[in-house]
Amino acid sequence: MADAPFTTFNAFRAVLAAQPGADKAAAAAAEARNAQLTKPPGALGRLEDLAIWYAGWRGDARPHIAAPQIVVFAGNHGVTARGVSAFPAEVTAQMVANFEAGGAAINQLAKAFGARMDVHALALDTPTADFTQGPAMSEPEAVAALATGWAAVDPAADLLVTGEMGIGNTTAAAAVAHALFGGTAAQWVGAGTGVDAEGVARKAEVVAAGLAANPGAAQDGLEALRCLGGRELAAMAGAIARARAERIPVILDGFICTAAAAALAKTAPGALDHVLAGHESAEAAHGRMLRIIGKTPLLSLGMRLGEGSGGALAIGVLKGAVACHSGMATFAEAGVSDA
Amino acid sequence: MADAPFTTFNAFRAVLAAQPGADKAAAAAAEARNAQLTKPPGALGRLEDLAIWYAGWRGDARPHIAAPQIVVFAGNHGVTARGVSAFPAEVTAQMVANFEAGGAAINQLAKAFGARMDVHALALDTPTADFTQGPAMSEPEAVAALATGWAAVDPAADLLVTGEMGIGNTTAAAAVAHALFGGTAAQWVGAGTGVDAEGVARKAEVVAAGLAANPGAAQDGLEALRCLGGRELAAMAGAIARARAERIPVILDGFICTAAAAALAKTAPGALDHVLAGHESAEAAHGRMLRIIGKTPLLSLGMRLGEGSGGALAIGVLKGAVACHSGMATFAEAGVSDA
Repeated sequence: MADAPFTTFNAFRAVLAAQPGADKAAAAAAEARNAQLTKPPGALGRLEDLAIWYAGWRGDARPHIAAPQIVVFAGNHGVTARGVSAFPAEVTAQMVANFEAGGAAINQLAKAFGARMDVHALALDTPTADFTQGPAMSEPEAVAALATGWAAVDPAADLLVTGEMGIGNTTAAAAVAHALFGGTAAQWVGAGTGVDAEGVARKAEVVAAGLAANPGAAQDGLEALRCLGGRELAAMAGAIARARAERIPVILDGFICTAAAAALAKTAPGALDHVLAGHESAEAAHGRMLRIIGKTPLLSLGMRLGEGSGGALAIGVLKGAVACHSGMATFAEAGVSDA
Repeated sequence: MADAPFTTFNAFRAVLAAQPGADKAAAAAAEARNAQLTKPPGALGRLEDLAIWYAGWRGDARPHIAAPQIVVFAGNHGVTARGVSAFPAEVTAQMVANFEAGGAAINQLAKAFGARMDVHALALDTPTADFTQGPAMSEPEAVAALATGWAAVDPAADLLVTGEMGIGNTTAAAAVAHALFGGTAAQWVGAGTGVDAEGVARKAEVVAAGLAANPGAAQDGLEALRCLGGRELAAMAGAIARARAERIPVILDGFICTAAAAALAKTAPGALDHVLAGHESAEAAHGRMLRIIGKTPLLSLGMRLGEGSGGALAIGVLKGAVACHSGMATFAEAGVSDA
């Protein structure tokens, strides 16, 4: 595990400000190759854009996806005391055991798409503080979670999906989104794992109370993560930032993952240029948040599980796109007449 | 290769009328299993419905997808003489050679999703007749193409994608759709491989002329295929019918594949119950046709290539769905608290 090059928010901000961009020459070479492949121009639709984008980030005009990594972070939330989830808080640890035993949805998807999967449980015995009473975390706690995420990424991976597990974390994510993007608390809450209308109304009250108790959260992306998020959200943000440093493209999962990513975008413009939206979740506010951060999801299948599941399913789409780009013959190679 | 159990349209109609349905007990058992898996109810969204549907067709409450097959049929079209395509007709044979050499998009997607791929060139030296002057095919020619499709399906496959290649065949498919579903010719034509607005207008005129020259086509699905379609469309219809006989679920590709499938649905209600729509193509009328036949596409990525490419990409989604369903632990197995 690489030590993270930051021990404070300010140092992490400096890391974000100095991140590398895509390789423009590789992207241009990929675009030139795409124009010669045996298909009508544009006929592979978005797959063509995906392959060129991936080539740019990997610095390789004819890349391959051979080593995708899925990292799942788990955290517990003091705000569960407010009755915001359909499941009891002990399910977080039970699901971590299920991930480790290979029994969860994300394990099956990792296997189906040839991805390595790692699970990191973050201080499950020490839930974050109830954010309706003050900050969920101290800065050192949040930095430790960012650093866990940073260290969790395999530099040899060529694609990253970040996922999470944490009873109560759709409420935390809604509070983060509300702090980042304004609107009303009710616009950012949804059914999560399955609360009823009364539960959704309670979540909106809790989110509103969280913003009132943490006035600094709306001023800064990292403060939003610290005051209203959770360890697994901060860890996903750290992993997404590390992926950028290694030029590993990232596929986002759902609402919670996207809220964590959005905190990075608020902190440093362009911080998500190496990131795709894997899917649009059934959690009502996910589509709204994706539109705000300018990401068009690859899939829309009514999923709302988390764990990285929607991002993992989208690995297949990106693998298909890159396989076409790098494996197809050109018109000249195949002796096919051009239009 | 199995001999087809029909030598006339009437015999093929009798085959369609006697096709098997899904195994309701297996689907019910899959639904019961789904309710016990370690996830909030419904959290995998459409993946849950897909897995249960697949289980029903396979007669196995805990199925696996181990042997998908992609079959690509190629045909030539007399109507190309009317200037309806951006590419010359010889590209059909050139692309068949490209499929055989492994250089086309569908080859890369087959490899990426672990599918066997077969290519069948159907009498490329004998294009169908120009349908603006009369029927594209005789009944024996159309039956021979249906029979090629029927025989092309591997009974040991557990999933089928049907694809096509045929310069001019978006025009043929538009004519078939117009015959099956009415409306105006202009509502069913689009840019195909890339004709301009003038080319699209010419396609609409050609389609309208085709319907005028073949008044029987609007009365019957098989007559629409014979008079206005092509050998590769009839072969896809034959393959989809054979898959039903073997209880192999099918994923449709784009506009041309869907038009061929729709001709079956017009011939026998329920003939597409074992069929999913893999994607919605950029070809304008594809979404319209999918809505008429009641199929919601799995993907919508602006693809318009044909070859089975959109269907092949959707194999990944179905594989993911079935892998979750059959591989996940139950709440009891994993010791996870239920909601």
